[in-house]
Amino acid sequence: MSDRLIDTRALEAALAEFARERDWDRFHNPRNLLLALTGEVGELAEIFQWKTDAEAEGVMGTNEAEHVRQEVADVLLYLVRIAMVLGIDIDAAVRNKIAMNARKYPPLRDTGDQT
Amino acid sequence: MSDRLIDTRALEAALAEFARERDWDRFHNPRNLLLALTGEVGELAEIFQWKTDAEAEGVMGTNEAEHVRQEVADVLLYLVRIAMVLGIDIDAAVRNKIAMNARKYPPLRDTGDQT
Amino acid sequence: MSDRLIDTRALEAALAEFARERDWDRFHNPRNLLLALTGEVGELAEIFQWKTDAEAEGVMGTNEAEHVRQEVADVLLYLVRIAMVLGIDIDAAVRNKIAMNARKYPPLRDTGDQT
Amino acid sequence: MSDRLIDTRALEAALAEFARERDWDRFHNPRNLLLALTGEVGELAEIFQWKTDAEAEGVMGTNEAEHVRQEVADVLLYLVRIAMVLGIDIDAAVRNKIAMNARKYPPLRDTGDQT
Repeated sequence: MSDRLIDTRALEAALAEFARERDWDRFHNPRNLLLALTGEVGELAEIFQWKTDAEAEGVMGTNEAEHVRQEVADVLLYLVRIAMVLGIDIDAAVRNKIAMNARKYPPLRDTGDQT
Repeated sequence: MSDRLIDTRALEAALAEFARERDWDRFHNPRNLLLALTGEVGELAEIFQWKTDAEAEGVMGTNEAEHVRQEVADVLLYLVRIAMVLGIDIDAAVRNKIAMNARKYPPLRDTGDQT
Repeated sequence: MSDRLIDTRALEAALAEFARERDWDRFHNPRNLLLALTGEVGELAEIFQWKTDAEAEGVMGTNEAEHVRQEVADVLLYLVRIAMVLGIDIDAAVRNKIAMNARKYPPLRDTGDQT
Repeated sequence: MSDRLIDTRALEAALAEFARERDWDRFHNPRNLLLALTGEVGELAEIFQWKTDAEAEGVMGTNEAEHVRQEVADVLLYLVRIAMVLGIDIDAAVRNKIAMNARKYPPLRDTGDQT
């Protein structure tokens, strides 16, 4: 689809198989996954909690970079699982929300080329 | 790439343009975006806070379905922005984390087809 | 004060001294403490993430009880620090919010003693 | 008790009555309250999400001060409810955690008064 913004189909298939191979579907209900998502967002926040903005912006040049990548991935994985168990089409939801945001927050007028 | 699990390239391009058109890049530093992510996870959690597991599993059949889709999208959008400002390759991070999880949690032995 | 609902004065004094003795005041600004609070809420959520409601209600009878107590304390300590650095009177804020909630959500009418 | 650091007894009594008068005890199980806590932390985070550290530190001098007080109170109220439904002695938990932290992070040596 030419207007697809995000493609999670291969990831969803991989996560479905991953859960099935471990008999984890019985744990992956919406409230459990929301608590797990909260936990992973907390782990990501902890990496940044005592950093200045400058330190935070430079974190990927430090030995914490791999930790940041792992926590970002963990948040994403649980979010995709939530969408999966709820039957949400992630790409459609994202495109719709961006369209809503664009109506709510119109672009600044470009006044730079008025000649 | 045949082994890509998630493709966020079009979304990242759209979000970059969206921020640029509104002069929002100055707000989108890692700590700000983390607080925004926390806010959106909170909004998603609030939809489910007084629901039983059965009610949570059935939420997409109710008039709250659109609200759930919007909050899932909001969490995703801020997470992708965090990855963008940190320069994280989301697909690589996800594939690496799944490989780590697979080593940490091996699949159950399938004893069902021993004949 | 007879209508005080919560008294955090001794705790605030102890936390002020604790931070001063470790030169931590320079880290304890509102945004940092909010990220730390998010982190601790995440740790508390993780304890419960794969539990049923029945398991969650029985957690204090298991060997996870001490962990739960510690995470509840951690969330409280960061929340009190946030109030401290912002100069919020916790008891006044709590009493005011309960009064607001009472107006928003009136008690159910008690129809049981109509004789 | 002379070594009590926080006294939540009157608040716990008030919250117990508040829930009882509205028949809310059936909703106030640990996982629900954790999702509600996550929601309130999110609302608090949203107030600060686009602020610089300087703006965050000055927020109580702005017209957002009352909003901040209300969200801090909301986080505290749900946290106390979590402790209540789990049967946690908040003061004991807090005193124990501070003692643990003191062992883990010893005070800096005071080298200022060496004469």
